[in-house]
Amino acid sequence: MIEHEMSRPLELDEVDLTNGFWCERQRLAKEKMIPYQWRILNDEIEGAPKSHAVDNLRIAAGRKTGTFYGRVFQDSDVAKWLEAVAYAVHRKPDPDLERIADEVIELIGEAQQEDGYLHTYTSLVEPDMRWTNLRDNHELYCAGHMIEAAVAYFEATGKTKFLEIVERLVDHIDNEFGPEPTKRQGYPGHQEIELALIRLYRVTNQEKYLRLAQYFLDQRGQEPPYFVEEAKKRPKDNPYLRKNKERHGLPYSQSHKPIRMQTEAIGHAVRAMYMYTAMAELALETGEDALQDVLERLWDDVIRSKLYITGGIGSSEGNGEAITFAYDLPNDRAYAETCATIGLVFWAHKMLLLTSDSKYSDVMELALYNGFLSGVSLDGTKYFYVNPLEVWPEACAVRTDLAHVKSERQAWFDTACCPTNVARLLTSFGRYIYSHSQDTLYIHLYTPSKAVVQLNSHEIELTQETGYPWKEDVELSIGKGGEFTLALRVPGWCRQPTVWLNDEELNCESLVEKGYVKISRFWSVNDRVRLHLPMPVEIVKSNPQLRYCAGKAALQRGPIVYCFEEVDNGENLSALIISKDSAFRAEYADDVLGGVVVLKGKAIREEASNENHLYYRDNHQQKVVEVTAVPYFTWCNREPGEMLVWMRFAEPCNG
Amino acid sequence: MIEHEMSRPLELDEVDLTNGFWCERQRLAKEKMIPYQWRILNDEIEGAPKSHAVDNLRIAAGRKTGTFYGRVFQDSDVAKWLEAVAYAVHRKPDPDLERIADEVIELIGEAQQEDGYLHTYTSLVEPDMRWTNLRDNHELYCAGHMIEAAVAYFEATGKTKFLEIVERLVDHIDNEFGPEPTKRQGYPGHQEIELALIRLYRVTNQEKYLRLAQYFLDQRGQEPPYFVEEAKKRPKDNPYLRKNKERHGLPYSQSHKPIRMQTEAIGHAVRAMYMYTAMAELALETGEDALQDVLERLWDDVIRSKLYITGGIGSSEGNGEAITFAYDLPNDRAYAETCATIGLVFWAHKMLLLTSDSKYSDVMELALYNGFLSGVSLDGTKYFYVNPLEVWPEACAVRTDLAHVKSERQAWFDTACCPTNVARLLTSFGRYIYSHSQDTLYIHLYTPSKAVVQLNSHEIELTQETGYPWKEDVELSIGKGGEFTLALRVPGWCRQPTVWLNDEELNCESLVEKGYVKISRFWSVNDRVRLHLPMPVEIVKSNPQLRYCAGKAALQRGPIVYCFEEVDNGENLSALIISKDSAFRAEYADDVLGGVVVLKGKAIREEASNENHLYYRDNHQQKVVEVTAVPYFTWCNREPGEMLVWMRFAEPCNG
Repeated sequence: MIEHEMSRPLELDEVDLTNGFWCERQRLAKEKMIPYQWRILNDEIEGAPKSHAVDNLRIAAGRKTGTFYGRVFQDSDVAKWLEAVAYAVHRKPDPDLERIADEVIELIGEAQQEDGYLHTYTSLVEPDMRWTNLRDNHELYCAGHMIEAAVAYFEATGKTKFLEIVERLVDHIDNEFGPEPTKRQGYPGHQEIELALIRLYRVTNQEKYLRLAQYFLDQRGQEPPYFVEEAKKRPKDNPYLRKNKERHGLPYSQSHKPIRMQTEAIGHAVRAMYMYTAMAELALETGEDALQDVLERLWDDVIRSKLYITGGIGSSEGNGEAITFAYDLPNDRAYAETCATIGLVFWAHKMLLLTSDSKYSDVMELALYNGFLSGVSLDGTKYFYVNPLEVWPEACAVRTDLAHVKSERQAWFDTACCPTNVARLLTSFGRYIYSHSQDTLYIHLYTPSKAVVQLNSHEIELTQETGYPWKEDVELSIGKGGEFTLALRVPGWCRQPTVWLNDEELNCESLVEKGYVKISRFWSVNDRVRLHLPMPVEIVKSNPQLRYCAGKAALQRGPIVYCFEEVDNGENLSALIISKDSAFRAEYADDVLGGVVVLKGKAIREEASNENHLYYRDNHQQKVVEVTAVPYFTWCNREPGEMLVWMRFAEPCNG
Repeated sequence: MIEHEMSRPLELDEVDLTNGFWCERQRLAKEKMIPYQWRILNDEIEGAPKSHAVDNLRIAAGRKTGTFYGRVFQDSDVAKWLEAVAYAVHRKPDPDLERIADEVIELIGEAQQEDGYLHTYTSLVEPDMRWTNLRDNHELYCAGHMIEAAVAYFEATGKTKFLEIVERLVDHIDNEFGPEPTKRQGYPGHQEIELALIRLYRVTNQEKYLRLAQYFLDQRGQEPPYFVEEAKKRPKDNPYLRKNKERHGLPYSQSHKPIRMQTEAIGHAVRAMYMYTAMAELALETGEDALQDVLERLWDDVIRSKLYITGGIGSSEGNGEAITFAYDLPNDRAYAETCATIGLVFWAHKMLLLTSDSKYSDVMELALYNGFLSGVSLDGTKYFYVNPLEVWPEACAVRTDLAHVKSERQAWFDTACCPTNVARLLTSFGRYIYSHSQDTLYIHLYTPSKAVVQLNSHEIELTQETGYPWKEDVELSIGKGGEFTLALRVPGWCRQPTVWLNDEELNCESLVEKGYVKISRFWSVNDRVRLHLPMPVEIVKSNPQLRYCAGKAALQRGPIVYCFEEVDNGENLSALIISKDSAFRAEYADDVLGGVVVLKGKAIREEASNENHLYYRDNHQQKVVEVTAVPYFTWCNREPGEMLVWMRFAEPCNG
């Protein structure tokens, strides 16, 4: 039996972002992204790709005539938008926004069919083809997002209409799927409903939802392969059939073997992350050791050889936006879909709740501050779907094997999963900061906030102040006290943390357990804890097995991974060589990129000894230049151009 | 007017390879490749991809029933095989081989239609669609290769049957295409017939063939774009229509603007090389300065930023086996099609004949010894279509963006243009060694051979002995003399050549003109010239604009570019660092790879300070190891594995 200590997150009732880094981004999500995305979904933004997502619902509801437009998963954009809204109005009412949300929910109810079925694509385009293409048609995927939105909206507003809609939908699904011979022994082509059903179970206490989630997870990958069998029964000349899905095979949807036999992360990255998240949620509910075993093996596999330093995951467009194999992490061709990093945050969060081990919160933090945030522009209006670690705009514009890499963020996408995903993570951010067990309050992330929670039957109140991730200090103060253990994460990147309790320095090392400094006492009002987390500029290298990073190094300070841009350093960043002699120093620049710490130092720039020759035997010219690195998440918010995370690194000369 | 000195090649009548490097490979072509390829074309090799090329002819000739199989250009495999045979029997009769060739020619004559049309694909599959898809269907391409084969066969054997077949074909084509309003103002989708028609003109002296070649070249790229107009007239639901050709656009076939306005090499590499070759042939015939101007600009564009160090050209599969843009030369994703390097050899050769400038013979030599020869295994039975400069077999097997890169040579291909191209270049190799003007004999390549040619009305005979490319000395002796200029190429890679005439050292520098040491005298029997071409191991770097090679170096010795293989150096070649301190030394190994010079030296191998971590801040472990480099053209003739041309290179420490 595996020792573990589980916790549950502090929910949005219990946490307030008061000011600072994530508070500002959350406000941007509520004030900018949510209204903007609403306009996109209603096709009101000139020049943006057409969405038609709300119109699809109107047509399905019979309120207007027309034809379906968009992808088979178009409904999910509306669901995720509603979910973002739900979090945004949770404890911060906004009557106008809530009215719009209520109207959309009304509309969804009308678009829902008599028997509970809800999927505008199928209803409007292929009404006779319900449940005949689980592999591709995303009916269960859309249901999952609807469920998550309904749960969030109920938790935020107490309103039950949306919940009733999705319960009718799930009852319909429950009638269609299951082990009984009269039912389909299938499971979704794109995992999502599994984790959603567990949320539905938690808020309704109806066991049948947990059982359905478990069924979908357990059935996946069993023989004979459902998607293969299902395909045989489909008419071959269906004009809507997407041929490319066949060529990716079963690993694409992690349906090549039963989940408990999967030891390697592979396939479509978002599918994988959502599935592993659901498996972790299931382990949280059932306490199943075998499942946790598998999750830890999968986690190790990812961390050891399949994760970009930015928290990006997924390294091949052509393999199906997929995780491929160990150490296959090209920087320029990276996929690193924003949704996949969001999924990694979800998964890391659940693993954290299962184990209280900081190795999970370390990755969660890395992903949040780097590969997640890079997915949206600083002004909240444009997005990256793909988050590369090396960009040469000309190559992205010309080479077909870089066609998936945009050198500028976009207003929207034909496949528009990322923007609403960014919004819903930002508006629900509070739940990732703290968690608690019966007697322990965990602090996983450092950002100005206030937490109020019941521990040991006391109401505890704690306030956090910090200039993180730019500044090195965190101040905690108790507003309402009691007997409990305060567990403070020591970030894995921090070499020498110091902790003071009411001005007395503590012996960190003796108090650390699984990466958390644990202080157990009777906490009094105005007790203070201070952490000092030194943030030198770190030179990071990759395991030599990662061929694409051989001879290179990346810069990191605290949780922030850095990159170099053309706008600061000139074109052809591959001509720059950094080393320990670069002596990078951190400078806070409040007039740049919204106020960030930039890194400045020296580098060598190589120049051709002869411009006209492509290959030569002479030495390059070298000159010393000043270079500037900016946080990776801020790249491409100024003039577009080249970008590079992994820089040529010269080892120091031996004496 | 541009100053130039033109020459004509010594033909196969006039040159004998006597022994040594190219002689052995030529014998391999005749004794191994030609019979093997004949068996492939007749589907007699178990396990090899189906060809059906000869059967297509039999079916079109009515000798057997059946259906067409293969690509639209399948006929060209037979034509190129015949061309290889022609050169092989030129002055070295082989009655058995000639009989087979005669039978195939007979068959081709029967497959030819009454009106001269010859294209088995169209005749058997889409007989009503003649000339309706010039962009894709390769009718003119196949005609071009038939013409080349017929010309070669006539020159080799004096037999005219094949020539008559192709003249009927060309007359048919001449009736179809031309400026007259009754004709089609089109040109081939895949350039080839242009250069073939010029060869036909030379052997028949019929001006109409030259005019047709000129028409095709001049008409290309004129408004409105023929392939676009042609496409509009085609029925859209033709099941044979290949959709991918539309997405590449006009630059793919270099038909985006008239040839004299093209200043950048772009598009499908083989098409480009064949077109530039034809343009150079046209310039040789017409003396047109504007054309030579364009060719020199195109040449400079290629040499400056679009050529791999191995003489490979073409850097993107997805862009259409294409040349993309300046400095876009990724090593692992390289296309570098064997046929494209062969085309580069053709083009370089023609430019050389136009100008007598060694910059062209330097590239011709580089291509021949590296990117061309790598296309065939040392035993002559397997081929590479794509010639990468970096191979990680696992990545090639898994990543779709590396699907075009095989980590082992293949028995044949569905698109089988490369093997017969290799064979015909090897059996005609003699023509690339020497050329002459009225009074000058040029030696472009060093390999044991004998040349007999008329200069200034004398018959001159010269013998060349050398251990090139492994040994540094070349010995020339005059068998029959006279008054003429002997022009010896000083290879561009040679820093300090020495030349002796009858044991007296000459002042090279004063005698060099456009890279050739020119010795004008009355040559007597037994006059001897010796060249000493020192071949130190050279460390070659790329212009820093070539981002993919930043921080790296390649090894070269004489004309041979080297590479490192896993079989000699272990896996993960990216963990090796070489430098000037590597002190690479050349060693002749006669028991390895057929007898080659290998390079041995020291390198540093990096190892992980912690195997389990992907990113870390510690220094790597380093250890000194012995490494071995082999000639690039010999890679993958032992155990398959990783390969790397561009190695990490550490600059020396400054004192």
